[in-house]
Amino acid sequence: AHAESGKPVDRMASYTADQLERVKQVLVVPPMVPAHDQVAKGKPKVVEVRLHVEEKQIELENGTKAWVCAFNGSVPGPLIVCHQHDYVELTLVNPKTNTLAHNIDLHAATGALGGGELTLVSPGEEVTFRFKAIKVGTFVYHCAPGGVMIPWHVVMGMNGAIMVLPREGLSDGDGNNLTYDKAYYIGEQDFYIPQNEQGQYKAYDTVLGSMNETLEVMKTLTPSHVVFNGAVGALTGQNSMTAKLGETVLFVHSQANRDTRPHIIGGHGDYVWNTGSFSDRPSQNLETWHIAGGSAGAALYTFKQPGLYVYVNHNLIEAIMKGAAGHIKVDGEWNDDLMTQVSKPSPIKS
Amino acid sequence: AHAESGKPVDRMASYTADQLERVKQVLVVPPMVPAHDQVAKGKPKVVEVRLHVEEKQIELENGTKAWVCAFNGSVPGPLIVCHQHDYVELTLVNPKTNTLAHNIDLHAATGALGGGELTLVSPGEEVTFRFKAIKVGTFVYHCAPGGVMIPWHVVMGMNGAIMVLPREGLSDGDGNNLTYDKAYYIGEQDFYIPQNEQGQYKAYDTVLGSMNETLEVMKTLTPSHVVFNGAVGALTGQNSMTAKLGETVLFVHSQANRDTRPHIIGGHGDYVWNTGSFSDRPSQNLETWHIAGGSAGAALYTFKQPGLYVYVNHNLIEAIMKGAAGHIKVDGEWNDDLMTQVSKPSPIKS
Amino acid sequence: AHAESGKPVDRMASYTADQLERVKQVLVVPPMVPAHDQVAKGKPKVVEVRLHVEEKQIELENGTKAWVCAFNGSVPGPLIVCHQHDYVELTLVNPKTNTLAHNIDLHAATGALGGGELTLVSPGEEVTFRFKAIKVGTFVYHCAPGGVMIPWHVVMGMNGAIMVLPREGLSDGDGNNLTYDKAYYIGEQDFYIPQNEQGQYKAYDTVLGSMNETLEVMKTLTPSHVVFNGAVGALTGQNSMTAKLGETVLFVHSQANRDTRPHIIGGHGDYVWNTGSFSDRPSQNLETWHIAGGSAGAALYTFKQPGLYVYVNHNLIEAIMKGAAGHIKVDGEWNDDLMTQVSKPSPIKS
Ligand SMILES: [Cu+2]
Ligand SMILES: [Cu+2]
Ligand SMILES: [Cu+2]
Ligand SMILES: [Cu+2]
Ligand SMILES: [Cu+2]
Ligand SMILES: [Cu+2]
Ligand SMILES: [Mg+2]
Ligand SMILES: [Mg+2]
Ligand SMILES: [Mg+2]
Ligand SMILES: [Mg+2]
Ligand SMILES: [Mg+2]
Ligand SMILES: [Mg+2]
Ligand SMILES: [Mg+2]
Ligand SMILES: [Mg+2]
Ligand SMILES: [Mg+2]
Repeated sequence: AHAESGKPVDRMASYTADQLERVKQVLVVPPMVPAHDQVAKGKPKVVEVRLHVEEKQIELENGTKAWVCAFNGSVPGPLIVCHQHDYVELTLVNPKTNTLAHNIDLHAATGALGGGELTLVSPGEEVTFRFKAIKVGTFVYHCAPGGVMIPWHVVMGMNGAIMVLPREGLSDGDGNNLTYDKAYYIGEQDFYIPQNEQGQYKAYDTVLGSMNETLEVMKTLTPSHVVFNGAVGALTGQNSMTAKLGETVLFVHSQANRDTRPHIIGGHGDYVWNTGSFSDRPSQNLETWHIAGGSAGAALYTFKQPGLYVYVNHNLIEAIMKGAAGHIKVDGEWNDDLMTQVSKPSPIKS
Repeated sequence: AHAESGKPVDRMASYTADQLERVKQVLVVPPMVPAHDQVAKGKPKVVEVRLHVEEKQIELENGTKAWVCAFNGSVPGPLIVCHQHDYVELTLVNPKTNTLAHNIDLHAATGALGGGELTLVSPGEEVTFRFKAIKVGTFVYHCAPGGVMIPWHVVMGMNGAIMVLPREGLSDGDGNNLTYDKAYYIGEQDFYIPQNEQGQYKAYDTVLGSMNETLEVMKTLTPSHVVFNGAVGALTGQNSMTAKLGETVLFVHSQANRDTRPHIIGGHGDYVWNTGSFSDRPSQNLETWHIAGGSAGAALYTFKQPGLYVYVNHNLIEAIMKGAAGHIKVDGEWNDDLMTQVSKPSPIKS
Repeated sequence: AHAESGKPVDRMASYTADQLERVKQVLVVPPMVPAHDQVAKGKPKVVEVRLHVEEKQIELENGTKAWVCAFNGSVPGPLIVCHQHDYVELTLVNPKTNTLAHNIDLHAATGALGGGELTLVSPGEEVTFRFKAIKVGTFVYHCAPGGVMIPWHVVMGMNGAIMVLPREGLSDGDGNNLTYDKAYYIGEQDFYIPQNEQGQYKAYDTVLGSMNETLEVMKTLTPSHVVFNGAVGALTGQNSMTAKLGETVLFVHSQANRDTRPHIIGGHGDYVWNTGSFSDRPSQNLETWHIAGGSAGAALYTFKQPGLYVYVNHNLIEAIMKGAAGHIKVDGEWNDDLMTQVSKPSPIKS
């Protein structure tokens, strides 16, 4: 009695992993996104990815340090990209130099805590597991080793996202294909850095040493920092995102814990999958889109004007005072028809 | 000039209450859901329900006490189920042993503060009122006796939900019927328990005695606890939800005050009505769904793997440190095609 | 490769500003909305609006003062209304009596920080700029003069909204026109008023004098007040919204910074554009709708019962204890079929 029963059989869903070609995906540091086909070619593939965990101290903002647990060393971890019906074969490596056990729960996977149950590795160990990508969309992955380790590792940055594209690519819901010229992956992270009595952020010698006081701040549900890609300013200046006039950019945005609300200052979301589900018709022409904590969403925008765009979480306190802002520099020629300064700032008339 | 004007007349909407059969609905303690037909049979009915209010102290978590005001003694109150065009005739009983006035505002009802105006009863009184269920969906109900009593009673657990099914049952929006094998009702509740100077949660001798200090904590907008079904662990261990492989489960989730974001660890929302509106096309294949404070949503999932699933509010601090987590135990045979451990945890190669 | 490429050319989009009639829009104090056509007549227009900025102290609630920066003197600023393909030519005036620089970023505009770059004016200056309204929906506008001035000016009330209607008016997504008998604009504002050691709200002699302590409160992400239209009670009593039985009312609701969740106690959202996008099919029959911080949404409701409706942000702590509640008084004759008191409050039977 399930709606699926009436659907035609999808032949691409019926292969098993051993019948398919294997490809290694070269993962890259966000906001970059791995090279990928938007429309799948041929049969599904077994996509092999390797993630290692780095426990390390980073500089969150001028002199403020934070301990992070980072998939492949970055906060967020790298975006993985595949198509529906592909298998993802993931090796998780926990180097001997680490002190904590880690695992991976992928929201794209089905069963066994999204992989969390089959991937728990102690320092010095690695594990390989495979899952079939049956659901399309952008999905969070994160460490979930049990108990308070779950929220603590997640707010130490141990999360990333996977994008499972429909085999035929993205669509506007009216049968029209949607494509992009480039893609960026923004991972938003709430940090809960303890302060001393003078209100200065505290640094800790070891990751475990930072735990108890960090958990106390976490209970307030009030982050000290909310940042994109691991640090205040990680996507500004030299590290700004870029585009050319007329280019269509896909922005994948994940938040593994708290709600967020992306907005492009001066731009829009032409097509937005705020839940990340590519099964659903995208919303159109949004000023701001809401992404629930524990999910990754996606938005397409075709730039119509050159200049500097600021990409923010539009809780402006979080954007400006806590760090959730990045830049997009767009090259091209200004269009006075869309916007023009009719008269410059000048003394008030009348 | 209203869109409704073009619609064909719905004959089922045109009966009056005195023309219809009356049925008493046997309410059950959540997460259980009353026995009900998914597709309505015959004409609408007058569904009679009886709710009494219990003011009592409960154990929220090992030794932490909270005063609650509980419809039929449970937090949340029982799920009421009916179909569109049914009348709900509700008797609200405020036992003489209580100390406060109470009423009921049902978001499914139209006019008079959702019933709040017609149902205010002092200790020792009962009242009966009737409304017609003209809107389909899952809707919160809650006590709303005026002024600060409104938020206070609501965060003391005095809320529940009603599900108004379309007469023809649920649909995927493409004309296909959606059915479920079983249903569960999860009521999420934020508590604001005051602490003493040592940081220990305080207990109070009387419900009124707890009011002023609780209101002070409420002003921080930061709950001390966020729990499912009235206590930390109320849906785990012996009280876990259950399903069998291949079964489709409907999860109704209400939050009368704060936003939440349900997620099934290792599963998905195959079909999700996050606003609770069964008039709207459900979203598909969600990792996490956002439910606004003051609403009840619904999600359908067909379990594809056996094992333990954790159902959480995916603010993981709220889930793990504040209590918003439950379990679903699913029986059946593991499917290696969907997920498999390729190689066990072992020393790092290379 | 963009979905738009397949669409028929919209001739109404192809005019330039100098070919079009100019009209001055008379702006009004919210919750009122400027007189406007729901369906556009003839060709697009150049809509001229003039906004000045008032820096002033207001009474937020019995004796509690707040410094605000207010477009045209009101919090929120006035709703601007136009149709798609219209040009909006906006003059921003910063009177010499002010002390701060201000500008305007309109989420409806494309490029140059939504106009923020071209409109920065010092006290004593005015500036005029023009943009083309290419996106349909309800959109926030706000001051964004750079750095912490951005969140600070926004939470001092310096925001409002613009409604860009489809030329053919609103639609239910099935080709049926949706119209309204009247419209109201509710601007929700979070305030962060510092307290002294006795917990009393502090007042400041100058707007700049209030800055540092206000920024400290802002970092807690916990507002002291959340109000509609500039003050606790601004939409109650004599200032209540009104409607007649059978009238359809459009409620535009903006929140420039924090998420909110409007709800009509005793009513519904018959048709809701929670993101504000009139390109999207509206949701139907909602109990509560979620509006992301940094956006404006819209809801249509046809009143079916007379009486008092309370319009709230359904975080009931924010509604009742922080101020986010207003009233709608509806005249007409009660319909017992929709709701009736079967038996009055009386001693408990049985
Ligand atoms: Cu970890
Ligand atoms: Cu998760
Ligand atoms: Cu009550
Ligand atoms: Cu309510
Ligand atoms: Cu300003
Ligand atoms: Cu903005
Ligand atoms: Mg699944
Ligand atoms: Mg939110
Ligand atoms: Mg997603
Ligand atoms: Mg109604
Ligand atoms: Mg929210
Ligand atoms: Mg899953
Ligand atoms: Mg609902
Ligand atoms: Mg644009
Ligand atoms: Mg909007």
